[in-house]
Amino acid sequence: MKNQPPGHTGRHFLQIPGPTNVPDRVLQAIAFPTIDHRGPEFAELGKDVVAGMKRVFQTEGTVVIYPSSGTGAWEAALVNTLSPGDRVLMFETGHFATLWRQMATRLRLDIEFVPGDWRHGVDPAQVSEKLATDREHRVKAVCIVHNETSTGVTSRIPEIRAAIDRARHPALFMVDTISSLASIEYRHDEWGVDAVSDKAMAAAKTAKSVRSYWDWQAMQETGHTGFFPYTPATNLLFGLREALKMLLDEEGLPTVFQRHARHGEATRRAVKAWGLEVLCAEPREYSNSLTAVVVPEGHDADRVRDIILDGFDMSLGTGLGKMKGKIFRIGHLGHFNDLMLCGTLCGVEMGLHRSGIPHRAGGVAAALEFLGALDTA
Amino acid sequence: MKNQPPGHTGRHFLQIPGPTNVPDRVLQAIAFPTIDHRGPEFAELGKDVVAGMKRVFQTEGTVVIYPSSGTGAWEAALVNTLSPGDRVLMFETGHFATLWRQMATRLRLDIEFVPGDWRHGVDPAQVSEKLATDREHRVKAVCIVHNETSTGVTSRIPEIRAAIDRARHPALFMVDTISSLASIEYRHDEWGVDAVSDKAMAAAKTAKSVRSYWDWQAMQETGHTGFFPYTPATNLLFGLREALKMLLDEEGLPTVFQRHARHGEATRRAVKAWGLEVLCAEPREYSNSLTAVVVPEGHDADRVRDIILDGFDMSLGTGLGKMKGKIFRIGHLGHFNDLMLCGTLCGVEMGLHRSGIPHRAGGVAAALEFLGALDTA
Amino acid sequence: MKNQPPGHTGRHFLQIPGPTNVPDRVLQAIAFPTIDHRGPEFAELGKDVVAGMKRVFQTEGTVVIYPSSGTGAWEAALVNTLSPGDRVLMFETGHFATLWRQMATRLRLDIEFVPGDWRHGVDPAQVSEKLATDREHRVKAVCIVHNETSTGVTSRIPEIRAAIDRARHPALFMVDTISSLASIEYRHDEWGVDAVSDKAMAAAKTAKSVRSYWDWQAMQETGHTGFFPYTPATNLLFGLREALKMLLDEEGLPTVFQRHARHGEATRRAVKAWGLEVLCAEPREYSNSLTAVVVPEGHDADRVRDIILDGFDMSLGTGLGKMKGKIFRIGHLGHFNDLMLCGTLCGVEMGLHRSGIPHRAGGVAAALEFLGALDTA
Amino acid sequence: MKNQPPGHTGRHFLQIPGPTNVPDRVLQAIAFPTIDHRGPEFAELGKDVVAGMKRVFQTEGTVVIYPSSGTGAWEAALVNTLSPGDRVLMFETGHFATLWRQMATRLRLDIEFVPGDWRHGVDPAQVSEKLATDREHRVKAVCIVHNETSTGVTSRIPEIRAAIDRARHPALFMVDTISSLASIEYRHDEWGVDAVSDKAMAAAKTAKSVRSYWDWQAMQETGHTGFFPYTPATNLLFGLREALKMLLDEEGLPTVFQRHARHGEATRRAVKAWGLEVLCAEPREYSNSLTAVVVPEGHDADRVRDIILDGFDMSLGTGLGKMKGKIFRIGHLGHFNDLMLCGTLCGVEMGLHRSGIPHRAGGVAAALEFLGALDTA
Repeated sequence: MKNQPPGHTGRHFLQIPGPTNVPDRVLQAIAFPTIDHRGPEFAELGKDVVAGMKRVFQTEGTVVIYPSSGTGAWEAALVNTLSPGDRVLMFETGHFATLWRQMATRLRLDIEFVPGDWRHGVDPAQVSEKLATDREHRVKAVCIVHNETSTGVTSRIPEIRAAIDRARHPALFMVDTISSLASIEYRHDEWGVDAVSDKAMAAAKTAKSVRSYWDWQAMQETGHTGFFPYTPATNLLFGLREALKMLLDEEGLPTVFQRHARHGEATRRAVKAWGLEVLCAEPREYSNSLTAVVVPEGHDADRVRDIILDGFDMSLGTGLGKMKGKIFRIGHLGHFNDLMLCGTLCGVEMGLHRSGIPHRAGGVAAALEFLGALDTA
Repeated sequence: MKNQPPGHTGRHFLQIPGPTNVPDRVLQAIAFPTIDHRGPEFAELGKDVVAGMKRVFQTEGTVVIYPSSGTGAWEAALVNTLSPGDRVLMFETGHFATLWRQMATRLRLDIEFVPGDWRHGVDPAQVSEKLATDREHRVKAVCIVHNETSTGVTSRIPEIRAAIDRARHPALFMVDTISSLASIEYRHDEWGVDAVSDKAMAAAKTAKSVRSYWDWQAMQETGHTGFFPYTPATNLLFGLREALKMLLDEEGLPTVFQRHARHGEATRRAVKAWGLEVLCAEPREYSNSLTAVVVPEGHDADRVRDIILDGFDMSLGTGLGKMKGKIFRIGHLGHFNDLMLCGTLCGVEMGLHRSGIPHRAGGVAAALEFLGALDTA
Repeated sequence: MKNQPPGHTGRHFLQIPGPTNVPDRVLQAIAFPTIDHRGPEFAELGKDVVAGMKRVFQTEGTVVIYPSSGTGAWEAALVNTLSPGDRVLMFETGHFATLWRQMATRLRLDIEFVPGDWRHGVDPAQVSEKLATDREHRVKAVCIVHNETSTGVTSRIPEIRAAIDRARHPALFMVDTISSLASIEYRHDEWGVDAVSDKAMAAAKTAKSVRSYWDWQAMQETGHTGFFPYTPATNLLFGLREALKMLLDEEGLPTVFQRHARHGEATRRAVKAWGLEVLCAEPREYSNSLTAVVVPEGHDADRVRDIILDGFDMSLGTGLGKMKGKIFRIGHLGHFNDLMLCGTLCGVEMGLHRSGIPHRAGGVAAALEFLGALDTA
Repeated sequence: MKNQPPGHTGRHFLQIPGPTNVPDRVLQAIAFPTIDHRGPEFAELGKDVVAGMKRVFQTEGTVVIYPSSGTGAWEAALVNTLSPGDRVLMFETGHFATLWRQMATRLRLDIEFVPGDWRHGVDPAQVSEKLATDREHRVKAVCIVHNETSTGVTSRIPEIRAAIDRARHPALFMVDTISSLASIEYRHDEWGVDAVSDKAMAAAKTAKSVRSYWDWQAMQETGHTGFFPYTPATNLLFGLREALKMLLDEEGLPTVFQRHARHGEATRRAVKAWGLEVLCAEPREYSNSLTAVVVPEGHDADRVRDIILDGFDMSLGTGLGKMKGKIFRIGHLGHFNDLMLCGTLCGVEMGLHRSGIPHRAGGVAAALEFLGALDTA
């Protein structure tokens, strides 16, 4: 806030697809005075957040909480269950899938990286096919990014699970839920995801990857004792507890998912009305937490973003990796509502105009027609 | 926040014309630990806020700070300068002017209340005329609401000053700046306003109204010593200091005024595009801090407001006094920016639709055209 | 915090007898985003705080909440119930009783001010006697400061009530509870205090004092509707609601009173062990919210305070009015506990030493003996 | 705060040796709205905190910031510079040194763990001797905990550096500064510590340990660009920036160190006056950030801690590992001052009394004598 450019006032619109707008109540909670991480009050906190996260993941199994970004959780999933040289099946759905591959390489895994066009999710048929050819069960894990934050494409996890089952393949099934969790439906147990599952914990017993900080073994007691194996980020856990209360006890996960679906739909209608293209080519795979918009050839998406940031104090997501300059991404997830979305889409429409991007003007109008309809509330 | 209706999420849109959206930095400042109101740290605070308020009022004279709402400041202006039975000239510009009259009645002043239609500001010619007939100078004060918060009409203070001068009348000139200060230009010294001025302080020496809490005498030392005559609302002063820093040192008052003018214009363009009427009938008197919108006969403005509150989590101002049910008011002042205004106007447009108010749909589009133009930034 | 003198760190010890240490939760609550003061969420807030304040006052009657300091509540009590020229009986218990007298003078009441030595509370026998001589019932109100914040003396309200009753005198009974409320037992209804009571509200119907802002009439609806007659200080009410929750639902008033009694006793033991004198000369009237300590002749109490502020970052109360330089005051009220009191007393003991005040060193030790005993918890 | 046991009020005394009392300003800073971690405002933040941390470490070299606890930084130091099978020299100074050894084992290093009695720091002569016998330079790193948080013993880093140099041994020198940094003098460059140093970065080029999240390579750009290789914990960095301002620009590191020295000395005087033993057996190695107190044989230190937590709402550090039940630890570091220390020591003295621990009563008095003396300010 303190470095806000002169002339800017009011709330910044943080419409990157994460970190998202954080509720004031959560911000206040992370500002509570720190407590003794070995005392009885902390034990309650630790147990509460693990119990809440189980409800978010829709799992009865183990949940592990790190203070790291999702990158740390990826590493934990790989080093706890696999050994150097193990083969993993990965899919090039976008930038984050590519980064995960890079990490797996550093961890000396043997990666089969199935190429993709960054406009589709993982094809369940292809999963089935790849595994069917792996007669010797050399593939130890199938790694999927549920919601590709770089592209706005959501892979169909239950269909991929079915594909693995169809191939009768014993590989672990690992899913990155970084930008889908608590905004797009995700059912850990029902969909048979393994990181973390009993099957994954069993694999952890023989996995030979070197690990210490990320070791699940020490972490899995937290749900029972409330304590962590090393000094926890207590203040972040205060915030997590408040966020869980809002998500689970106040708004309720089904309403949260419905809200994101509504905002995704309104955004896509705006994009289409502008005459622009949504990056995601497969309607079944449209992401409800963000929408990547393709800028016409010969135009620079980052220039649009800069003009919007300077002129309207809104941050949009940049094109990552090979999408650099070709797309911008609109986050419509987190602590968000209809009028914040409207402000966001207005900012984009005015930004397109100011940047000279060829487009039609009715995007906001299309969104208003959808959001304002009497029977969609 | 805690009582937010189920299903609501994201930031509430507080678009009443005050209290306004408060910047996070100001909210954080009022949460600083309270300090000794007789210690050296407080003295700095007290002197800082008085000095800052002088810059906001554009005055070299005395500034008095109460923890009360503007109602208290009104009372202070009347009881410090007048005696029971004194004649004051007041104008029915709207609800707040009427309440001020009611207060003056309670304080046993002799009020001439010039009727008005709630759609115009005070007519300088009428002021001149009224005073010209007062040969014996029985009128002791002319009381004007600068920006009528109930109607969105801004009276032309410099022209009224000129009218008083033209009449060569010695009456005190009192101006209510509650919803104009720091959003619409106001020049206390240049415009010759008396509450508080040297002339008003001189009047205070002989004024016979009973007063204690509101007495200016005790208060006027604060600018020099930093201390208050009774226990101050320290935490609110922390907030005021931060707000002054933002207004004066960061955004700068001229930019603040320009921003409010821009948002007032965009809002009026939207209202006109909807085919609705702005309550203010005189373009020279359009308020830049709020816009009152007339709902067509046979429709209830409060029903529109309820539908917008329930459906889009936005609070709009109700019609006060005789405007009850006939208008709603859009606040576009305070800690505000283009995209917050856009969200606001989208909420109104959707609310008009849902309420079945006859209107055209292009209001938001008209605002976007204005705000998005390349040369208005 | 930002102006903290260089070299200072850690929490400031705010041991003036009000404003007191404010709980972090209350500070956070006053930093919630402001809401519409005419909306349904506010109505709940308004009703909640009035209901809570009734429990704090131990009354079934009307409670009126102003954003002002206690000075405003004093003025409200006088102008709502009395007419200029009415006789009131006041007692010189200290600086605040003297200020109240000064206010009554400004409000043109006819004051009988019974002199006092600032070391005793109001003598019930004297009340009885004064009223007994008033055969014509010219005295309209008896005004008592419950806990004299300038001296640390608590007048015995129930005994004074009995004295008024004994004299069969119809005067209103007004009590200032500014520094006793919610720290020292106060029973509004049981003790027959009138401001505000049905009897006081009846008096308000005929009282001729001029009033507007302070008028109870408009205010008394808040308990039913939750709304205020003029724009309320919403954020302060957020804080009040949180404070009420802590006082009434969590700690509980009886425990709060017991805690203050315990800390008062510990402090007085320390003062006596230092060989210094408590200003209050009557043990039955020792205040549990603050202790005024007499500095030996020839020494300046304010120098001690300065040395303690500079050396140990603790604010103590100064001697007010005719006690200037003769005493300092230790606040032991508010959001406070045993170890904060211990830190406070250690600061005083070291400050006495550094100032060269003749004293013995065992004050802290005496407090520890009392607080640390196994059976006082 | 919300789970505080009934009857507790006021500030909790968090006197564990970390996490410490966090300044309100830092808590407020971590509650600022999150910003775009790829935007220009973030770039300033990233560069600021790296520049500030260099001043804290007293280094011109690279600084790497993780959101993890110190455990993560340990792992980073080992995996970036060493290869499985590499020999490291470690010293059993206490529980954290033992945990570090455990981690090194998991990372498949070859550890020589020199036994210790948990009452002394690392003996420089022993370092010299161990290295002198390592003719083949098989030892790749010497790993030292600067301030053993489990024992309150501070090893003499410059003397150990000299010992390594005396042995003309090329091993890397790694120092854990978790509970010493910014409370006890630490000079990274002057003392020739290697994690991170140019020598360490050179070692990183050939080190074969598997690493991804902890990789320094990606991290070292942050000082130049302000950006992080994966999504950073933005809100924690807001807090870090505020803390750095307080430490470096307001109090100043030399004053911070002097303050901790003063509080360490006062605490040890109290312990000795109680007739109890400080765990640290070597006065040159007394820690200034915490003091471990030995409870007499036959008494349970954790019972003392429980009695103090229940009775006085203060958290003390438990005995870790083989010190379980034998000691308690008093943290006197962080956002702390004389009167907070006094409250702490009073709580300990009363707790010793309530627990029936044989001791003399004058501990607080001894601390007051030291802290209150005129010439120690």
